Amino acid sequence: MAERLPTAPPRGMRDVLPDEVELRDAATQAIVRVYRSHGFRRIETPALESLRLLLGSDGGENEKLIFKVLKRGEDLEAALAGGGRELADLGLRFDLTVPLARYYAENHARLPDPLKAIQIGPVWRAERPQKGRYRQFTQCDIDVLGVGSIVSEVELILATCEALAGLGLTGLAVRVNDRRLLGLIARHCGFTDDRQASFFIAFDKLDKVGAEGVLGDLREAGHEAAAIVRFEALLPVLQKREMSLESLAQALRAAGEPAAFESLASILRIVAPELPDGARVEFDPTLVRGMGYYTGTIFEIVSPSFPSSIAGGGRYDRMVGRLLGRDVPACGFSIGFERLIAILGEREGARVTLLPAREGARRIALLLEDEAALAGALSAARALRAKGDLVSLELRRKNTRKQLDDLKAHGFSDYATLEGGAPAVVKPLRQTG
Amino acid sequence: MAERLPTAPPRGMRDVLPDEVELRDAATQAIVRVYRSHGFRRIETPALESLRLLLGSDGGENEKLIFKVLKRGEDLEAALAGGGRELADLGLRFDLTVPLARYYAENHARLPDPLKAIQIGPVWRAERPQKGRYRQFTQCDIDVLGVGSIVSEVELILATCEALAGLGLTGLAVRVNDRRLLGLIARHCGFTDDRQASFFIAFDKLDKVGAEGVLGDLREAGHEAAAIVRFEALLPVLQKREMSLESLAQALRAAGEPAAFESLASILRIVAPELPDGARVEFDPTLVRGMGYYTGTIFEIVSPSFPSSIAGGGRYDRMVGRLLGRDVPACGFSIGFERLIAILGEREGARVTLLPAREGARRIALLLEDEAALAGALSAARALRAKGDLVSLELRRKNTRKQLDDLKAHGFSDYATLEGGAPAVVKPLRQTG
Repeated sequence: MAERLPTAPPRGMRDVLPDEVELRDAATQAIVRVYRSHGFRRIETPALESLRLLLGSDGGENEKLIFKVLKRGEDLEAALAGGGRELADLGLRFDLTVPLARYYAENHARLPDPLKAIQIGPVWRAERPQKGRYRQFTQCDIDVLGVGSIVSEVELILATCEALAGLGLTGLAVRVNDRRLLGLIARHCGFTDDRQASFFIAFDKLDKVGAEGVLGDLREAGHEAAAIVRFEALLPVLQKREMSLESLAQALRAAGEPAAFESLASILRIVAPELPDGARVEFDPTLVRGMGYYTGTIFEIVSPSFPSSIAGGGRYDRMVGRLLGRDVPACGFSIGFERLIAILGEREGARVTLLPAREGARRIALLLEDEAALAGALSAARALRAKGDLVSLELRRKNTRKQLDDLKAHGFSDYATLEGGAPAVVKPLRQTG
Repeated sequence: MAERLPTAPPRGMRDVLPDEVELRDAATQAIVRVYRSHGFRRIETPALESLRLLLGSDGGENEKLIFKVLKRGEDLEAALAGGGRELADLGLRFDLTVPLARYYAENHARLPDPLKAIQIGPVWRAERPQKGRYRQFTQCDIDVLGVGSIVSEVELILATCEALAGLGLTGLAVRVNDRRLLGLIARHCGFTDDRQASFFIAFDKLDKVGAEGVLGDLREAGHEAAAIVRFEALLPVLQKREMSLESLAQALRAAGEPAAFESLASILRIVAPELPDGARVEFDPTLVRGMGYYTGTIFEIVSPSFPSSIAGGGRYDRMVGRLLGRDVPACGFSIGFERLIAILGEREGARVTLLPAREGARRIALLLEDEAALAGALSAARALRAKGDLVSLELRRKNTRKQLDDLKAHGFSDYATLEGGAPAVVKPLRQTG
């Protein structure tokens, strides 16, 4: 026999056991049901995209984390002969937004206008593995392409809150900000426009590294000292969450661009009364979001059950234009599906509550003495399934008592036996141990 | 603006439009419902596996088609310095069986015994793109690990037929054979045991290249002339589909291994009366299946609507053992999901029939004059959704008539308008064009 192969999944990736898959499936179905009821429809793109697309997408830090796919045959030989640069021409997607923009640019003539898309699927990032963070993970996005109005922001926020509340999450807080506002703050402080992306990357870490950490990062990045001092003075004002949108608007109105204030104020006003019970929406001038492609409103949802945000998104009106040659307004909201599942998995009885099985369906193990009993067992099983039960044929083992305990441990509710030609006798499984 | 990026998906891969995604989702849900009712449960593994696993898996031709993922950082530099071999250490899975064997070897202590697994997900093969064949495609597998009895074969075949029949496929034919029988034939003709895999690969092409093609391939592969002559004499007997299992058993019984005949005969006898209406099961001594890892029964399902098989599988009792150190009997059946969707997509009204939406649910476009009407529209939409309708907010366009036609074309059944504070007025969409 050859050398034994390793059986662990690749570093940072994971196998999902049946109980968790059922929880994930139930959550997915519940979310999709809400999104569909708001007029969104599922689309799908390939897992692989051209590296040129992925690298030219303003994806921020994520571009460094792409899993690249090796060229093949003659292309690979040519790349090796050329010194080993350009060994790859495809990469695994690191989010669902860049592929969506390409999908829209390619297929818009055959798509509804506006396109209200649901995407649920895996993405890959070669991050340093750590607890709760994986190199393959699922994202669950809705996006509206083709609408410049805040109608999109409002329905994205409400549909996402409804989906999360429908899964039993309470105390949700929606935080909203606008990249144009952040741009004004940057300009007000004196950060030059060409260094704005670098300013945003540092500012985005406020939650993790605190004010001192952000200021240190700005100094390290070589920003002007005077700008950093002005920003330092402004930071405590921004961090006061109770500060109203109006007060900031007044403080900065002189700097122009009233549209950002206008849309933020409208979103807050319209969304607040429509939210599910216990959820709230608030203006957060320190909200930045990591991606470089946002152009207007940005938002995220936090839950008291989880330290970081469980959903995030915003408006990205210029991404499609770089592919299509004309701008198409776009806005999206992405649920961090792995975080959601972590929260749901910790709830008592979450699995039972969420399983979309028919009300009262039993999960029955139909015990079989031997192959001779198979024909009779098949008809008994068919009769039970017709009543809505889930029936699994299982060969009876010598140690039946241990077998019944194992079945109970793996989620069976009942077992059934056959006596001659009579109908199956179904009995509830009870732990004997 | 930077050079315009290409918007087509990578070569041989595809974007899926909303109508097709909904068909795929509905088919998936219908299949999973049947499989769950038979006691199977979904599991999930990562898309990437170690290249050592994929290359050591007896996957036949598929191993040549692996998309390999480039190493990163220092590992990549070392590989380049070493002359550019071993540039990759991960690959995208080319089927769901090899990952399942690894999953079982890794997690068996936490899994039910036997494991009855459902897997639905994409696999990747760098095949030459051609009509209807893609480099990323979906497989839909059920497997039983831990059962050596034909109970597994019987339930895999019946559950798969029930799932396909449930989707409206009629005239299904299940073909069954046994690798042990094929081994006897090879030995009877005089092919040496160490060349058996090469003999199977040639024999497997019978459907595509005909008898002459197979014989030519065998000659080209350098098999003994005497063995090829004997096989040529036997081929017409094997090709007679009406030949009974018993007659072949008699002709070859002298060569030993009665177990293969025994289990084939039992499977045929037990499965036949349990099949859905119009389906049949038959012994096919020319059935080979491509994979190198099969050890016993092999089977496939053909439908009159499609030239090649739409599902295939078999017993592979030694694959897990190479990972776990002890053999675990295993048997699986895989639906070619893309072929199934091609068949369903050609049926008139398939989409409407399959959509798992609530009976009578309307898909309503709620037309909005402007953002000022948003608050009222939200409550009108909520009222309609509560009745089970799917409601999408849409901004009214200047050319409303064209907009209504577009909505109809994209699957909306109704549209609604708001008059002051009154409830929304819902009207059916009619093609005006």
